[in-house]
Amino acid sequence: MKKHNFSAGPCILPEEVLQKASEAIINFNDDDLSLVEISHRSTSFVNVIENARSLALELLGLENKGYTALFLQGGASNQFLMTAYNLLNKKAAYLNTGTWSSKAIKEAKLFGEIVTVASSEDKNFNYIPKNYSIPTDADYFHCTSNNTIYGTQMKSFPETEVPLICDMSSDIFSRELDFSKFDLIYAGAQKNMGPAGTTLVIVKNDILGKVERIIPSMLNYQTFIDKDSMFNTPPVFAVYTSMLTLEWLKKLGGIPFIEKVNEQKSALLYAEIDRNQLFTGSATIEDRSHMNATFTITSSIASEALKNKFDTLWKQANINGLDGHRSIGGYRASMYNALPLYSVQALVDVMQELERTS
Amino acid sequence: MKKHNFSAGPCILPEEVLQKASEAIINFNDDDLSLVEISHRSTSFVNVIENARSLALELLGLENKGYTALFLQGGASNQFLMTAYNLLNKKAAYLNTGTWSSKAIKEAKLFGEIVTVASSEDKNFNYIPKNYSIPTDADYFHCTSNNTIYGTQMKSFPETEVPLICDMSSDIFSRELDFSKFDLIYAGAQKNMGPAGTTLVIVKNDILGKVERIIPSMLNYQTFIDKDSMFNTPPVFAVYTSMLTLEWLKKLGGIPFIEKVNEQKSALLYAEIDRNQLFTGSATIEDRSHMNATFTITSSIASEALKNKFDTLWKQANINGLDGHRSIGGYRASMYNALPLYSVQALVDVMQELERTS
Repeated sequence: MKKHNFSAGPCILPEEVLQKASEAIINFNDDDLSLVEISHRSTSFVNVIENARSLALELLGLENKGYTALFLQGGASNQFLMTAYNLLNKKAAYLNTGTWSSKAIKEAKLFGEIVTVASSEDKNFNYIPKNYSIPTDADYFHCTSNNTIYGTQMKSFPETEVPLICDMSSDIFSRELDFSKFDLIYAGAQKNMGPAGTTLVIVKNDILGKVERIIPSMLNYQTFIDKDSMFNTPPVFAVYTSMLTLEWLKKLGGIPFIEKVNEQKSALLYAEIDRNQLFTGSATIEDRSHMNATFTITSSIASEALKNKFDTLWKQANINGLDGHRSIGGYRASMYNALPLYSVQALVDVMQELERTS
Repeated sequence: MKKHNFSAGPCILPEEVLQKASEAIINFNDDDLSLVEISHRSTSFVNVIENARSLALELLGLENKGYTALFLQGGASNQFLMTAYNLLNKKAAYLNTGTWSSKAIKEAKLFGEIVTVASSEDKNFNYIPKNYSIPTDADYFHCTSNNTIYGTQMKSFPETEVPLICDMSSDIFSRELDFSKFDLIYAGAQKNMGPAGTTLVIVKNDILGKVERIIPSMLNYQTFIDKDSMFNTPPVFAVYTSMLTLEWLKKLGGIPFIEKVNEQKSALLYAEIDRNQLFTGSATIEDRSHMNATFTITSSIASEALKNKFDTLWKQANINGLDGHRSIGGYRASMYNALPLYSVQALVDVMQELERTS
């Protein structure tokens, strides 16, 4: 029986996607060859990556608006570096909402002055700072839309005249936004898009070519734009599986459809967290993430016995991946696009069972 | 029916590896979860990457000799950059044996003076230069052990006191060498090791930490050494499938066994190329690669009709991937570890059929 998979990433993917990906490892396109043993320059694979790139733009409403979609390697961590390498001349502005923002800031500091416009580190990143101002002479403003570890999510983005760069690794394709307000979006695949091993980069072409430094080929967005995302051998399996997931999402009705499902799921879980006195939500209510709900057993009644009982119950209920990130502990229920509503119901049932029997 | 797959890479992998990889996409370790939807920090996956890393060192005879094996992203192209970023202070020496060497030189030039000790560009890289000298004040010497495009392979490596760096992307694990003579070896997985999407780096720990520049986290070998090759989410599927291929190789008898098979395969094909007057080998005989045999229809008798007939025959014989690289044309038969001897026999049969019927 399939588990209720609340893993924070790599995470649950649609069953039909996994089925097709598994089949392609043996026999791709009924061609009696594996997907992973054909040339990446074959028509079969070129069609895959082109389809994945255009689906990404289509789902985000960014077709014919001067953007290019790239499937790169190295994860969001490599984008912390590439964004600065390609775009930071003198000064850039960063919003610090957690571990990933902090890492992005650390890498960018190698290339220029970094202004941290605001940080929620004072409360262990349990909220999203507001009312900060962005220097108008910054080369760009960088933010992280969703913070997996802390369970916070930006509900709105600042109006700014400087280019807007966003790490959307953990909530891309999960909710409607005006994506055309962003100049560069990046996202590691392993949440809402596919397996680990590729990173989607959506870049507005006209923001490039404005820094003085010489950029090594593999760090230069223009290299990959010029070569249709195939400067070198791409991560074939990760790109193919991402394409399947994007096809799945389009077939369901795209972002407008999945956003409603995601709202149902998070509403169901947060309602239980707020109702059930055994549990306390970790993030400030207005900044709660629809992707990752963080919570603890209420501190006034917490005990080793109660924790053990809860852990036993959810494991018995076939739930997986509910432990909080090693840096903050507690619990984290990640409810990415592919997680069905009934999995959230299964978790809520366990929370209620704990209440009834404690 | 399975094709005879002579693809240059991504290329043929062992059937049992593909079978297991396909199953793991649905149900990994009988845990009712896909390999690609579990945490990379789970015991299950940590065991995979640790096993892959130690198998790589074991097969190369480099256990307990001060080396670390890493599974990174970005392909050999990213290693062109990382080697220079981490190791080039002032001057480095490069041997230019083709497209990949040239690209490595191009990236390294951003970081210091590059001395090209020898090049075979004068004859379109159809041989391996010999009798060059390596400056003793170079930070390192870099070479490419096998040149997929031109079908040449280094049969020996220079004795030098400077650190020896080798791009072994297309012949690692294919032949016995004293690997302890090398200070850094890298190889994109998609030839003898696994699917595209990960790169094996074997680095001697004591060569690091000697450059002045600040190295960004994602380009710094030490980052990945310190984090047991998991600084950020690794390309899970590519690492797992590489582990399966390394297990397969070990079970067969390791490099000594597969080297004999590879010699049988290339001997069979080169004998036919030399015997059959319709064909001419492209590379200088003494430098011929055991991995990639490049050949053309003999120029004095070449015609569009003969070429078409040959192309029809090999495709009818269920052969795949025989076209030469787009930059040089002709034919290329890639005979990586997983290609069975009978596939080479099938190609030889077709070459003889062309001879009989022309």
